[in-house]
Amino acid sequence: MNGAHSLLTTLVGNGVDVCFANPGTSEMHFVAALDTVPQMRGVLTLFEGVATGAADGFARMADKPAIVLLHLGPGLGNGLANLHNARRAHVPMVVVVGDHATYHKKYDAPLESDIDALARTVSGWVRRTLDTAEIAIDATDAVTASRTGVVSTLILPADVSWSDAELIEPDPQDSHLPVVDDDAVRDAVTALTSGSPTVLLIGGDATRIPGLSAAVRIAEATGAKVLCETFPTRLQRGAGVPAVERLAYFAEAAEEQLAGAEHLVLAGAASPVSFFAYPGRASDLVPENCDVHVLAKHCGAAAALQRVADELAPGSVAAVAPATRPPLQSGDLTSFSAAAVVGALLPENAIVVDESNTAGIGIAAATAGAPAHDVLTLTGGAIGYGMPAAIGAAIAAPGRPVLSLQADGSAMYTVSALWTQARENLDVTTVIFSNGVYDILRIELQRVEAANAASPGPKALQLMDLGRPALDFVKIAEGMGVPGRRVTTAEELAAALTAAFTEPGPHLIEAVVPPLAG
Amino acid sequence: MNGAHSLLTTLVGNGVDVCFANPGTSEMHFVAALDTVPQMRGVLTLFEGVATGAADGFARMADKPAIVLLHLGPGLGNGLANLHNARRAHVPMVVVVGDHATYHKKYDAPLESDIDALARTVSGWVRRTLDTAEIAIDATDAVTASRTGVVSTLILPADVSWSDAELIEPDPQDSHLPVVDDDAVRDAVTALTSGSPTVLLIGGDATRIPGLSAAVRIAEATGAKVLCETFPTRLQRGAGVPAVERLAYFAEAAEEQLAGAEHLVLAGAASPVSFFAYPGRASDLVPENCDVHVLAKHCGAAAALQRVADELAPGSVAAVAPATRPPLQSGDLTSFSAAAVVGALLPENAIVVDESNTAGIGIAAATAGAPAHDVLTLTGGAIGYGMPAAIGAAIAAPGRPVLSLQADGSAMYTVSALWTQARENLDVTTVIFSNGVYDILRIELQRVEAANAASPGPKALQLMDLGRPALDFVKIAEGMGVPGRRVTTAEELAAALTAAFTEPGPHLIEAVVPPLAG
Repeated sequence: MNGAHSLLTTLVGNGVDVCFANPGTSEMHFVAALDTVPQMRGVLTLFEGVATGAADGFARMADKPAIVLLHLGPGLGNGLANLHNARRAHVPMVVVVGDHATYHKKYDAPLESDIDALARTVSGWVRRTLDTAEIAIDATDAVTASRTGVVSTLILPADVSWSDAELIEPDPQDSHLPVVDDDAVRDAVTALTSGSPTVLLIGGDATRIPGLSAAVRIAEATGAKVLCETFPTRLQRGAGVPAVERLAYFAEAAEEQLAGAEHLVLAGAASPVSFFAYPGRASDLVPENCDVHVLAKHCGAAAALQRVADELAPGSVAAVAPATRPPLQSGDLTSFSAAAVVGALLPENAIVVDESNTAGIGIAAATAGAPAHDVLTLTGGAIGYGMPAAIGAAIAAPGRPVLSLQADGSAMYTVSALWTQARENLDVTTVIFSNGVYDILRIELQRVEAANAASPGPKALQLMDLGRPALDFVKIAEGMGVPGRRVTTAEELAAALTAAFTEPGPHLIEAVVPPLAG
Repeated sequence: MNGAHSLLTTLVGNGVDVCFANPGTSEMHFVAALDTVPQMRGVLTLFEGVATGAADGFARMADKPAIVLLHLGPGLGNGLANLHNARRAHVPMVVVVGDHATYHKKYDAPLESDIDALARTVSGWVRRTLDTAEIAIDATDAVTASRTGVVSTLILPADVSWSDAELIEPDPQDSHLPVVDDDAVRDAVTALTSGSPTVLLIGGDATRIPGLSAAVRIAEATGAKVLCETFPTRLQRGAGVPAVERLAYFAEAAEEQLAGAEHLVLAGAASPVSFFAYPGRASDLVPENCDVHVLAKHCGAAAALQRVADELAPGSVAAVAPATRPPLQSGDLTSFSAAAVVGALLPENAIVVDESNTAGIGIAAATAGAPAHDVLTLTGGAIGYGMPAAIGAAIAAPGRPVLSLQADGSAMYTVSALWTQARENLDVTTVIFSNGVYDILRIELQRVEAANAASPGPKALQLMDLGRPALDFVKIAEGMGVPGRRVTTAEELAAALTAAFTEPGPHLIEAVVPPLAG
């Protein structure tokens, strides 16, 4: 049994059975071994950033890792941006990077590079297997480490993969169940019952129904304000789900949400900071003289909140969002009318992958009372996440419709994700909000005081312009096997969404909207 | 004067006047400053790997660096694969990576990551500017370092960019002209006149006419065999240019080319090694008992060869390739008939960017006697290089037609390069050799003995298949503003190439060919 076969067998034995791959020569034994391990599903992507984004989307919905198979340092490099997002999402992921044979590395062949250094920038666990006999140990350790919410990267030299060996069996692994910290619970209870204005900021595993329910019960019992982190990994919401407000992206708005708080209790969320620095503005968004209390890190936040809720409001039941949808709209599309149409038509049990950026400004409000759904967001800020993540979400949750809301600019980073959606016949509806500019940059240009609204020069504006030539996403999608449709009115969007939600398989809708930054 | 303006002014003062950019919020002051420095041209790309590949292609043709402007760690990550190729090409490049403001980094905002560690994996020079006053020194040092054939990476915090300061003026820089090593010349002359079989392997700056002439003069005078490295940075060839054979990609073929050599003289090329390791085969391709002599590294190889040639064959003139073109072909396209059509029609003074991989097997022979042209190749093996490099080559050499020969698989890594070709109205003709598979992997699967020709299983084959669904490159190109045409016969390819070479602006031709690995 060669190393590749042993690796796949070990991974399957640990419950890992989907592999998103963009392989090369050094991974050929791994690829060949797929036919000897029927439980492992191989999913081809045409670019590594699609594979890593898909694995992240998969992990968010499956609550277990997929493997990503990448080729040497440049392959890992192409996958880094979405590994950055996965790192910030604290999802379990296992990356296998094929490397040159151990004895070949010293020759500095053209594809040689420092894979270990690259891997360390995004991984919570990195190991290089140097002996085929140890591959079961290393693979088991990789999966175990990933379950703590980190990217595990296993570097696999080609000869370790192709050699045969008697395996050293791994010791049984302890599971890392999160432990609720009694002192932290006591401290949070004290803050929440202090009578002073308190904000409870939730994130990590607390943005699903158990954590949301506990947080809302706490708020109802104490008058604390509940906020959810700006970019949750997986937020459950909609009719019948306890509703929370998200911390705003723009620091000024976030400061308003936090204003007056004397206690800030963190449950699974990091202490709030500005996404970028702005001249003359604070980076730290915690109000002055506000005490920060860490109830729990990303893992175990839901359990800690439940402990607090049961202490403060035993037996209470959280209020939930009522079922309500906006009416269908008519006329030329805007970001807001498009959002209303989405809210009016969102199917039952949908997964919404949201990378709509500025164009999605109205989505949260318009879908607040739509049927219960999951929202996956851009946790690390590295654009090019959404369309790959939709692949992984669809594979992790077959039978659930996936709505991928995408901005035109960010769509182009990993656009070949559409091809894998077609190849796997995934039930993904992609809406491209096509406004023809990097709208966020037009806004940020003013906010960082590089130029005021009147002053940006023509060369600066050209570096934010996507309209010359105009991108035709219908043609791009059709070129990759996904049927597409362009809409410019609310009625057309409604018709296109209805058709896409009805027919199986992937669809793309290019929804033409004006930018926010006029 | 703020840091961004000072940086641009300094770069322009150092002869750097093209910026390939994919900016974000932390680069907004740099972007705004473009309007105050008219000499600097900004070129927008929709993905960072396009920007880095374009800068590499630019440097190969302009013999000076362009700047690449990238956004934080994830932006650098997306650009790494083509920075890897640039590193292997030993071209001058300056990468400016915008970072969070200095005081903002400690807050670990979502986009925070270890940019320095990433940069070091591909850069010969890395610096982080922490004081606006030093920006002219840092920018000058970056350009100076890049001229030695390395990627220079300058990390620019947003506040360093937006702050004003009196600049500290840099000291005048010494130029780093390559020095010919007398001992190395003497050693090479001794080997070449030893009477034993000798191979002269050239690369680096020796693959243009001066170096090629010298190498061929040496060969004519001594009987040595001249070979050129497998993936030259910029190879001049065609009618009227001294011709050299390239070292083969497949190790078995390279071993045959080198067989029997008792001396190997390296002029600008690395000692030959197998691209990948193969079970039971040597990685080092130098024949046993062959002495290796290093005449020169990548920089200064042409000058060293000229010294040797003048010593061994003073006053001699190198033979050159005769003008000869293959006849036009007819019938269904194959890799060979397509190559013949290219050879028959290649325009005068063309730049050929070659990432055609297996499908390009016949190109070198078919264009050997075509009008003199430059060939840029995949120096680092990281695919996704060709279409971006064509952008840079076209901008560096306006008036010269660029022929971008591209494989379907590698095209999809950086396909948005087409949009920038359209936006800048570049005279680039892209031929996509569409064979519907990762053909090289079908071949390598057998060569690494992961599976023999008969045995690969269906799951392995699926991970090398691009045909389900078929990619329609005409639609993809049209979706990005480049007119496209699909051809299946040699006559159609000839008509499409003729039209593309006649009309200004970019064109794409999808040439359907069968794979080599049946």
